[in-house]
Amino acid sequence: MIPTIKWHKNSIRIIDQTKLPEKLSYVYCRNIKSLWNAIKTLQVRGAPAIGVAAAFGTYLGIKDSKQKSYANFKKHLDSVTKYLATSRPTAVNLFWALKRMESAVSNNKDKNIKELKNILFREANSIFNEDRSMCRSLGAYGARLIGKKDAVLTVCNAGALATSDYGTALAVMYKANAQHKSFNVYACETRPLLQGARLTTWELNRQKIDVTLICESMVAQLMKNKKINKIFTGADRIASNGDTANKIGTYHLAVLANRFKIPFYVVAPSSTFDLSLASGKYIPIEERKDREVTHFNNKPVIRNRIQVYNQIAPVGVRVENPAFDVTSHNLISAIITERGIVYPNFKKNIKKVLNK
Amino acid sequence: MIPTIKWHKNSIRIIDQTKLPEKLSYVYCRNIKSLWNAIKTLQVRGAPAIGVAAAFGTYLGIKDSKQKSYANFKKHLDSVTKYLATSRPTAVNLFWALKRMESAVSNNKDKNIKELKNILFREANSIFNEDRSMCRSLGAYGARLIGKKDAVLTVCNAGALATSDYGTALAVMYKANAQHKSFNVYACETRPLLQGARLTTWELNRQKIDVTLICESMVAQLMKNKKINKIFTGADRIASNGDTANKIGTYHLAVLANRFKIPFYVVAPSSTFDLSLASGKYIPIEERKDREVTHFNNKPVIRNRIQVYNQIAPVGVRVENPAFDVTSHNLISAIITERGIVYPNFKKNIKKVLNK
Repeated sequence: MIPTIKWHKNSIRIIDQTKLPEKLSYVYCRNIKSLWNAIKTLQVRGAPAIGVAAAFGTYLGIKDSKQKSYANFKKHLDSVTKYLATSRPTAVNLFWALKRMESAVSNNKDKNIKELKNILFREANSIFNEDRSMCRSLGAYGARLIGKKDAVLTVCNAGALATSDYGTALAVMYKANAQHKSFNVYACETRPLLQGARLTTWELNRQKIDVTLICESMVAQLMKNKKINKIFTGADRIASNGDTANKIGTYHLAVLANRFKIPFYVVAPSSTFDLSLASGKYIPIEERKDREVTHFNNKPVIRNRIQVYNQIAPVGVRVENPAFDVTSHNLISAIITERGIVYPNFKKNIKKVLNK
Repeated sequence: MIPTIKWHKNSIRIIDQTKLPEKLSYVYCRNIKSLWNAIKTLQVRGAPAIGVAAAFGTYLGIKDSKQKSYANFKKHLDSVTKYLATSRPTAVNLFWALKRMESAVSNNKDKNIKELKNILFREANSIFNEDRSMCRSLGAYGARLIGKKDAVLTVCNAGALATSDYGTALAVMYKANAQHKSFNVYACETRPLLQGARLTTWELNRQKIDVTLICESMVAQLMKNKKINKIFTGADRIASNGDTANKIGTYHLAVLANRFKIPFYVVAPSSTFDLSLASGKYIPIEERKDREVTHFNNKPVIRNRIQVYNQIAPVGVRVENPAFDVTSHNLISAIITERGIVYPNFKKNIKKVLNK
């Protein structure tokens, strides 16, 4: 599997996701400005991948620092992390990674500048490697739930392109595939931003996993015809009672799964849990721009030599465009974490598994 | 309301739906070749509208006929209807209208050519006017079901653009609006061909009906939040037990409506019923081309001066693309026809209402 992000000859190499699925190409970020740009323009996306990008980015920003004193070096470091933090102001993993990089330095005030640079490089690699082993662990636990001839459904892209390795929900499929289990996947195209059509099918196709692209509106009919028998999705935030926020459309899948008695699994690392929240009703739902719905693919095309966007709805039409929805815990069969599988009663068992 | 299709100064004037929603423009068909082209390229679409187009098209084809004998005139007529029948080979209303035009002539063998031409013009106008009064009647019955502050959901385009007048499902909304009822509409964008985004929002916006565009994946969440309290959809074919085939995604709405205890109404003229079918399982479901899903809007754009299609999924990915689904009668609250509202037991009551 080609890594979405890696440190490569003094640069950060990133798969340019804005070019997928038409073209596999790389961006080589050799300075923090180009990395900032890559995060901003979604060339790299997915919470874990953004965290890793920010960690390597911090090292990239200070590796050639000419500062001699700890105080000045720390000042330089702070300017780098502050700048990178502005690339995606709502990405929790971004801040988490930058904070870890800062702590690695402030916990080692006694070291010289060369040593501090090495510490930062090691810390970035740790974040990268922890993400990789998290993916592997999620995959191993999840693959136990995949049986022969299963037909599994997924939504959005919770795959290699969102992490440093196997992904989260897709890790389950990669692992089951490595175990030579025979199964097939349905990928929801995931309107409005089409991460399923553009990214998930691309990933699974490359790994020769049998994948079929569908529109969200087809799911109920497929379930009725017994063509889907399990669902695996990622998660953006999980409350302490198991209520799960994820890409818009996830809740709709959970409701349908419940109706057709199909197991519905959430796959997410322990960092996704927010135990300070009693339930999903405290998770804020981001409302995104109308033009994600009213204009197609949100990428410009050239028409009569003028750059235009592909308009699919009348100008000024009212739109609702929530980016996420919340799936009630009672619609979830289990939550797969890197520390084990959590079954209901979630309120009790989430704490038990996370404290392992 | 601007009519989708009308006879205008020796031509058939059609709203060019391929240009919507970006531009309201007309095609004036002055010969049968341009009309054939308008049907073929979906400049005019929707079963009732295609029927009306074919009827006027038949008159267009023979109005300047130089034939003097009945036999030769009939031969000319047959060549016209045969040609028009090739424009959309699966459109039932097209054949139905052409057949009515042929019968109007063969039932009047004793008339002279000038009289036959007049008969054909009157028959085309009858088909047009019957379609208009069908819409009005559907609207009047359906509007009774709309109450104050209702929030109604619809899918695809069962509106003015598909008929000669008010539409079917949207007729209900136009009529309720004319009655000064205050309500709002959610329009599903209707992947893959986006008739909801492109056409329904355009129509309702023009009539100043409060409409909000959403993706199919958002419906469950909106229902959970009590933002939708009624559903009105059109129908492509209704079996004698009430099972209803309609645009893909309709069944998914019906399942969700059932879960959230929201009434689900089908609005369709009596010509939609196929009483020869015992149930929906005998309705064949058309599987359409992959590229409706893998390529966006299926309209070419110019990139680097080359005409390309907007690709959104990897080349060669497997796709399922059923054009329709079947909603079981037990998920339908009522079927609104131009002869009255049919409530369950459908098997018994459909016959009763249709025989009125």
